[in-house]
Amino acid sequence: MFEKITIIGMGLIGSSLARAIREHGLATKLVAADTSEEVCEKVRALGIADVATTDIAKSVISSDLVILAVPIGAIKAVAGQICPFLAPNAALTDVCSVKGAVLEAVEPFLPESVDFVPAHPIAGTEHSGPDSGFAELFAGRWCILTPPPSTSIRAVEKVSKFWEGCGAKIEIMEAGHHDLVLAITSHLPHLIAYTIVGTADELEDDIKSEVIKFSASGFRGFTRIAASDPIVWRDVFLNNKESVLEILQRFSEDLAAMQKAIRRGDSQYIESAFTRTRAIRKEITEMGPEGYPSPKQMPRDQQD
Amino acid sequence: MFEKITIIGMGLIGSSLARAIREHGLATKLVAADTSEEVCEKVRALGIADVATTDIAKSVISSDLVILAVPIGAIKAVAGQICPFLAPNAALTDVCSVKGAVLEAVEPFLPESVDFVPAHPIAGTEHSGPDSGFAELFAGRWCILTPPPSTSIRAVEKVSKFWEGCGAKIEIMEAGHHDLVLAITSHLPHLIAYTIVGTADELEDDIKSEVIKFSASGFRGFTRIAASDPIVWRDVFLNNKESVLEILQRFSEDLAAMQKAIRRGDSQYIESAFTRTRAIRKEITEMGPEGYPSPKQMPRDQQD
Repeated sequence: MFEKITIIGMGLIGSSLARAIREHGLATKLVAADTSEEVCEKVRALGIADVATTDIAKSVISSDLVILAVPIGAIKAVAGQICPFLAPNAALTDVCSVKGAVLEAVEPFLPESVDFVPAHPIAGTEHSGPDSGFAELFAGRWCILTPPPSTSIRAVEKVSKFWEGCGAKIEIMEAGHHDLVLAITSHLPHLIAYTIVGTADELEDDIKSEVIKFSASGFRGFTRIAASDPIVWRDVFLNNKESVLEILQRFSEDLAAMQKAIRRGDSQYIESAFTRTRAIRKEITEMGPEGYPSPKQMPRDQQD
Repeated sequence: MFEKITIIGMGLIGSSLARAIREHGLATKLVAADTSEEVCEKVRALGIADVATTDIAKSVISSDLVILAVPIGAIKAVAGQICPFLAPNAALTDVCSVKGAVLEAVEPFLPESVDFVPAHPIAGTEHSGPDSGFAELFAGRWCILTPPPSTSIRAVEKVSKFWEGCGAKIEIMEAGHHDLVLAITSHLPHLIAYTIVGTADELEDDIKSEVIKFSASGFRGFTRIAASDPIVWRDVFLNNKESVLEILQRFSEDLAAMQKAIRRGDSQYIESAFTRTRAIRKEITEMGPEGYPSPKQMPRDQQD
């Protein structure tokens, strides 16, 4: 499908892409680039790319597809380094969870002959680093593309085919709209999980040890989310500030209303609020379990 | 182990107990009681008890173990009905997620010869009703007993053996302490999940449909929790008000601090908060996956 693909950033997503590219034979040559020599050595040991290099700029030379798999906060610096070396007509894509900020960061550096098709594969685990990746991470999962109106259809098709080759299903969306939808489905849940686990962390020691011991009921799932990569998620909140704060505001108001209902013992308010939410779950389960990692791919204790 | 066991309330927990009692041969005779004739008919059709009756009061006659498996809000009324009919030296236990309020509700009705050993099996799914139960629900899970100081050792041992017979591991705790620990491990996570799914439910229709479509990332797990039985959970919050409001207050303060950090772009605060939470996850995963339903017992889409 491609002569040469370069992946920049060999963490969970980058290393999963490398494995998927190999597994599905999507490239003749695969170059892995990472600023960390330690990560490059690990990639060589794992044998998941043909070349592993810390020379980010040169790594993209003559590649027909370049994938930015670094945290959003690093996108601008990386774009500045690689853009002068991009081959004419190369396609450029990324994997960030925020799309408006990525477009803003990359566009000033983009050569005229290169199309940037931002992508967000909705897939991941709470583990980090090249060891944690696996080829099936994208199988059956959505990958949202947010190309700006000036993007060529050819580039969108090229990048779509790549993600489909990794097993993903494609959806095309405007970047700002993506950032609002993801603020509620992903960013706010992560923020809340990080916060509640932090609240527990500050409890007195005897209670804290019991919270850990009896964590099976709800809290355990939150700790899984709150174990996600701190740099990646810090960057999400710094770069999707507006949508996250908007959704967080609505959530805080709803939580305050719930708090008041509990304080006043307003059983009708609570019951009606708790009944309403079952409908959304029903719609979600009716869509089927599609896109979820199978039990085989996921350690048993992550299934909470 | 027991001559006659009566279970009052044949929902998820009651019907799972009935199945576990049968599977492990814990009783010669098993009586199921439920105020709903429809539920009783279902129990008869499922064949998971020897008798199914709507006569709550009479159902406990000559039983050596009686299990209250109704929502906390119904405990007082049920205790009032059954206590005059309890056999001398019968053991009484329950399954509620709040223990202080249960003790208060039951104690005034308790005959002198009967010991009440409150129990909270930390196990459940988001499904309700007699159809949703399964015998393995308690296998490897904690069951917390909160007997008041006046309880006889004999009764505690009897009830412990019953829960161990169902596959659970026993922990003994003071009721108020239980209610505080569970407020953070279970009650607050449920409250937050109900709230965030409610917030999503109020979004504009076009965004809402996409939130459902792309729910795979964090939000989906919250919708599972928010599909739990509304009556059971309404009663939890009405009956563990003090501990829940205390923990909710701490959480709200922490969330407000996070909100401020995002607004100000305080990357150091965010990164340090997100790094800290990994330690708790590490402690939890080091305890092992023990106590979790195996993939076989759990539909695949519930494993998020």
